[in-house]
Amino acid sequence: MSTTADHLQLGELHTAQLFGALEDPALNSMNFLNEISHRYPDAVSLAAGRPAEQFFEIDSLQRYLNRFCQYLQDDLGYTDEQVRRTLFQYGRTKGVVHGLIAANLAQDEQIAVDPESIVVTVGCQEAMFLILRALRTSSADVLLAVTPTYVGLTGAARLVEMPVLPVAAGAGGVDLDDLEHQLRQARAAGLRPRACYVMPDFANPSGVSMDLADRRRLLAIAAAEGILLLEDNPYGLFPHADDQRRPTLKALDEHRTVVYLGSFAKTAMPGVRTGYLVADQQVVDSAGNRGLLADQLSKIKSMLTVNTSPITQAIVGGKLLENDCSLLRANERERAVYTDNMRRMVAGLAARFPDPDSGVRWNVPVGGFFVVVTVPFVVDDALLERSAADYGVLWTSMHHFYEPGVPVHALRLSCSTVTADEIEVGLDRVAALINDQLRRG
Amino acid sequence: MSTTADHLQLGELHTAQLFGALEDPALNSMNFLNEISHRYPDAVSLAAGRPAEQFFEIDSLQRYLNRFCQYLQDDLGYTDEQVRRTLFQYGRTKGVVHGLIAANLAQDEQIAVDPESIVVTVGCQEAMFLILRALRTSSADVLLAVTPTYVGLTGAARLVEMPVLPVAAGAGGVDLDDLEHQLRQARAAGLRPRACYVMPDFANPSGVSMDLADRRRLLAIAAAEGILLLEDNPYGLFPHADDQRRPTLKALDEHRTVVYLGSFAKTAMPGVRTGYLVADQQVVDSAGNRGLLADQLSKIKSMLTVNTSPITQAIVGGKLLENDCSLLRANERERAVYTDNMRRMVAGLAARFPDPDSGVRWNVPVGGFFVVVTVPFVVDDALLERSAADYGVLWTSMHHFYEPGVPVHALRLSCSTVTADEIEVGLDRVAALINDQLRRG
Repeated sequence: MSTTADHLQLGELHTAQLFGALEDPALNSMNFLNEISHRYPDAVSLAAGRPAEQFFEIDSLQRYLNRFCQYLQDDLGYTDEQVRRTLFQYGRTKGVVHGLIAANLAQDEQIAVDPESIVVTVGCQEAMFLILRALRTSSADVLLAVTPTYVGLTGAARLVEMPVLPVAAGAGGVDLDDLEHQLRQARAAGLRPRACYVMPDFANPSGVSMDLADRRRLLAIAAAEGILLLEDNPYGLFPHADDQRRPTLKALDEHRTVVYLGSFAKTAMPGVRTGYLVADQQVVDSAGNRGLLADQLSKIKSMLTVNTSPITQAIVGGKLLENDCSLLRANERERAVYTDNMRRMVAGLAARFPDPDSGVRWNVPVGGFFVVVTVPFVVDDALLERSAADYGVLWTSMHHFYEPGVPVHALRLSCSTVTADEIEVGLDRVAALINDQLRRG
Repeated sequence: MSTTADHLQLGELHTAQLFGALEDPALNSMNFLNEISHRYPDAVSLAAGRPAEQFFEIDSLQRYLNRFCQYLQDDLGYTDEQVRRTLFQYGRTKGVVHGLIAANLAQDEQIAVDPESIVVTVGCQEAMFLILRALRTSSADVLLAVTPTYVGLTGAARLVEMPVLPVAAGAGGVDLDDLEHQLRQARAAGLRPRACYVMPDFANPSGVSMDLADRRRLLAIAAAEGILLLEDNPYGLFPHADDQRRPTLKALDEHRTVVYLGSFAKTAMPGVRTGYLVADQQVVDSAGNRGLLADQLSKIKSMLTVNTSPITQAIVGGKLLENDCSLLRANERERAVYTDNMRRMVAGLAARFPDPDSGVRWNVPVGGFFVVVTVPFVVDDALLERSAADYGVLWTSMHHFYEPGVPVHALRLSCSTVTADEIEVGLDRVAALINDQLRRG
């Protein structure tokens, strides 16, 4: 049956009457990935980019809340009434844990920022939307993003109708020559590149980290080209060894070219839906008045979510206070789990695919949640569906992280929410699937 | 000093390089109103549309959380691990308290909805954005809104670059003849009206409620014209007397023309930043596949905020469970406060402006938070600034709720977060200001 907008009943809408991007695969990725894991609850999941959950304690919520309330009273001199008002009422659009976040950035990342340049957001996802909405002034404005790209970035760009031009990742995380080439090509086509999105540390989905020289050159290119760098850093605190941590772009940022996107989903808990951005750029109007980019983004936020829940901010704040503002310290146990799991996963792949000529390869990240396995056949959601139904294992097809229509020969395995046994069983099943595919030729 | 985009230093942006709506007064209203109350903390505030705060208890948060966890275990059969996962991890995009919200709507509003048609949102503000983003397909799509209009609606429309055409309120809340006229005029201009935003009960800022006949006629017009009604209902549970409650549009909606926007900011607490929408419209694609509009909106949400914090949802859920899903019952004390305060405010205005020829008039709402005072001079933020500095009283200039450039002769007084004494002192100061203005002629 075919239906057009002319044949609708009352209470019916045709997809053609709704925002076109709703039909875009980018907006369906997140739902598809959630939905398949609900349909196959018994499958071993190497798909989810979720933090380890064995250390979650319901009681910690109250403890964190109490700790934050104590801080409001003892450190900020709030009365009981002011404490209650802070948690229960409408509040400051830019948030109430900005001071603690600034302390955390100084402590864990050696980033020095004015707390006023921080906007606390409803997860990092809202932060992406705010900066893209601010930068998108006309259809000429475009974003660049290192490919493969986190689906949430692509989705946020769709919501503001801002094209995302892919930049090659190369071996080092960002192919800087390709970045310059893409910038030239975009300008020649009459487009206005505004920013480049990059995840320099243990990227999702590639697992790759940029080296220091590339970080410095990327900053220099951005300054020379007049574009912002949107640095997303959800996994930076999870290196396998301390010497695998590198300074963030924001820590190296001398010219305020970096807007830093922060997440507490992996370092505190996803359930707080609390993230932030640092936007210390100056905004100048025609009269010469100056202000922070953070304050412009705050205006957008006031019309999107009003403010981030002060209750979830208080939970994050309490966790920061309990750990002297170091989330590196707070996540020692989690980091050990991720390190063990990834080593087991990489060793398990080597044991199951000993033949270097099999065409099955994988990278060996030095931190983060993800390993990418490259195979000599196309990987898509139909294969995942079969993997779930017939093999009992879930993973993520890498095509979600590329522009639609590109055939992709890789899958992403996540090591963050699985036990050692689940890794072994999951890899047995992945190997059975891959070997069956290889035999089919 | 004048600055153009050509004279910028590194790390500087010109406002011309940012989204144009950032210069729009609509996006600055919320910030201005917050900011002035911070600058004059000692002024009596008759400005804030905040709920009463004398009943807030920090301990209730833990109680609500526990109650919700108990419900997950006892009623839904969750294991401890599933309970922890529900609160701490990423979760269902449409939310986890949809069943309780459906029970609440049945209980308090006699609205029967499938819980699957509910999307739990980051406050009602995100709900507005989701529906507007979905309906805005091109520059021809326009929204209608009864004027004066809540600033958050106007701001959300700016974010998706959707024009808002004003509809006169008339005496009854919506001038239905003007609505039909505006629809005709918009269509004649090549525009495509998609929806009309309306707050039928104790509206912000007007305080007016629609009568039953107008509600039915509004629904008939919407069905005939093929537009949706966006019904926003934050104040419906606060009538002065039970017989002043009327059925919501959604309760009367026979043709699924109503998208219902729900808020817990006034009935639970603003700090949870939790609201919802009901979108039970069917969406049909070209292949004839059907789904709920709620599921389309959920896709947008997945790229905006991923999901609403399950922790704040649990707090709302616990409060609902504690009150047998009736927020009317949960708010008996608050409702009595609002009723007493508004009666005191209206009586106080009558005592201070006894001369019917003074040109000072006000409406007498039968519920909600707001009274509108009309005066024979222009009211703007400059006058508010003087009121705060010289008279020590804050209120809200009604011009924020109209299109820019329209001179407005009214101010909004809120009775929700003030004591009886503050009302008297506040009104003395408002009267002094108004009388001084009248004497100036």
